[in-house]
Amino acid sequence: MTPREAADLLLAGRPRVPAVAAAEAYAPANIALAKYWGKRDEALNLPTAPSLSVSLGPLGSHVRLSAAEPGAAHDGVSLNGAPLGPETAFARRASAWLDLVRPDPDFRFELQARNTVPTAAGFASSASGFAALAKAADALFGWNLPMESLSVLARLGSGSAARSLADGFVEWRAGERADGMDSFGVPLPERWPSLRVGACVLSSREKPVGSREGMRRSVSSCPFYGGWPGLVARDLAALRSAIANRDMALLGATAEANCLAMHALMLATRPPILYALPETLGTVRAVWAAREEGVPVWFTMDAGPNVKLLFEEAAEPAVRSRFPGATVVAPFA
Amino acid sequence: MTPREAADLLLAGRPRVPAVAAAEAYAPANIALAKYWGKRDEALNLPTAPSLSVSLGPLGSHVRLSAAEPGAAHDGVSLNGAPLGPETAFARRASAWLDLVRPDPDFRFELQARNTVPTAAGFASSASGFAALAKAADALFGWNLPMESLSVLARLGSGSAARSLADGFVEWRAGERADGMDSFGVPLPERWPSLRVGACVLSSREKPVGSREGMRRSVSSCPFYGGWPGLVARDLAALRSAIANRDMALLGATAEANCLAMHALMLATRPPILYALPETLGTVRAVWAAREEGVPVWFTMDAGPNVKLLFEEAAEPAVRSRFPGATVVAPFA
Repeated sequence: MTPREAADLLLAGRPRVPAVAAAEAYAPANIALAKYWGKRDEALNLPTAPSLSVSLGPLGSHVRLSAAEPGAAHDGVSLNGAPLGPETAFARRASAWLDLVRPDPDFRFELQARNTVPTAAGFASSASGFAALAKAADALFGWNLPMESLSVLARLGSGSAARSLADGFVEWRAGERADGMDSFGVPLPERWPSLRVGACVLSSREKPVGSREGMRRSVSSCPFYGGWPGLVARDLAALRSAIANRDMALLGATAEANCLAMHALMLATRPPILYALPETLGTVRAVWAAREEGVPVWFTMDAGPNVKLLFEEAAEPAVRSRFPGATVVAPFA
Repeated sequence: MTPREAADLLLAGRPRVPAVAAAEAYAPANIALAKYWGKRDEALNLPTAPSLSVSLGPLGSHVRLSAAEPGAAHDGVSLNGAPLGPETAFARRASAWLDLVRPDPDFRFELQARNTVPTAAGFASSASGFAALAKAADALFGWNLPMESLSVLARLGSGSAARSLADGFVEWRAGERADGMDSFGVPLPERWPSLRVGACVLSSREKPVGSREGMRRSVSSCPFYGGWPGLVARDLAALRSAIANRDMALLGATAEANCLAMHALMLATRPPILYALPETLGTVRAVWAAREEGVPVWFTMDAGPNVKLLFEEAAEPAVRSRFPGATVVAPFA
């Protein structure tokens, strides 16, 4: 099934022409505590395993979507106030998603995106961007889709966007259907106001291997990949229990172990994928040293060299003094 | 089966009292190209998978073994000329091995060990030490055992010692028998005179987790461990082919990937085992950068933070200029 066919299936019976002149939406970025690494369907961004994240509240993406003037040659795309040419990576990715909901081939959109995720803070903005885009399209066309369907639509832009339709903890179900209609984010009811996430930016250089290519390589050539789905299932159970009981030590240890397992998969992929820099290891060891000295802080890392810290409000002064460069976010504040 | 029972089985019908006053032997250290990580029998050091190494020629251990004066309270042990007390880790480990061949409980040995492996060069000396000890005991008692049996005896002291009974490439067969009599090192016939091994010492601090404990943890808690034996089998086939064809690129790439897979197992073990230091990653990236610039050099790493380089004689000037601190060994010189 193609992404457009999936979108058509989802939008069957819904209006396909704009209902309002323009629509605006916001979606938060998210950080995964149980990671997404590997697709069972590359075109539809269907994962081999579920994942679980926490949304980052005020850090995310605002999107304004409207119809362009008739006759426009291409979608008009701007990011943080700056117009982008149609050949830029951002505009191409946005237009590819807009193709899924485009009323007819000559219809053009105006899309203004603005990130409150600091570009240099090490949080990805593609998840919040596609989630906000799906919400804006829903409002523009008047679809009135349930959150699950918006999550499916957002997922077609970027897998992890499936987790950015809600605040708080979100579990992205892997699903089993070939069309992916059962693969969407489901919010957990629990709130954890004292939870904090810190981002330590160690490098803003472009990744040597993008996530899409890296996942493909791991699924096809990592000899340990077969162990990943079972591991994630066990980690998800532990994370759900940690969240239900506000058990920071269990949450932190599980997130840390899960991210190390993902990086282990990458390392055992052939050829290997190594995102860690020397500074990454230094920060990881600094987190362990902090814990040995009684500071309850854990880490997680995405497919990149930067390190995210997980801790509670009470530990914030100690964490800030040890990691002075960290950007601290309160996901439930 | 206990190690003593295994030794008794092996020595059945052989003399159990010294045949000569003293015996001397030498065995080389070795560096694994396909790693040993995990035991199927902890007491007998029987591995879950085979491994393959290259012996380091002149870097190894000399051992002199004799009977102590009657009435000695304990084995007399010296290392590099310095007498060691019976409670030192080295003397205890040596005496535990000597228990396997001790003629009667009151018999005491004099053991003088001398390493030509530079202590600070990052090569392990336990493999060469136990291999030399097995050879010295063979000569002292006049057993005249075949190399396979000496490999089994050496293995009872340290797993990787099974690979140190011969020069050149040695494959340690995992074996299937519960008594381990089919788990020994087998030399490969090929010689590769231009092969070089370099050792980059980044830290001489004690490892945070010893190999024995680390292997135990990985076997019991690493969710990817089940994939290891199959991976090693494939890597061994590639290494045998590389050796037969003097294919340095295949040898290097396979050794590098195998060691990264071992470190991936460690990383995914719970709690994780991380031997790499920031400098380790820096050196790994420097090797990759060198290769990108045309210098044919690869790395391998054991259960520690140090990096070993693999290359051929023709690349030695380029390697030495990029890694000026490396100790270079010619295994077949």
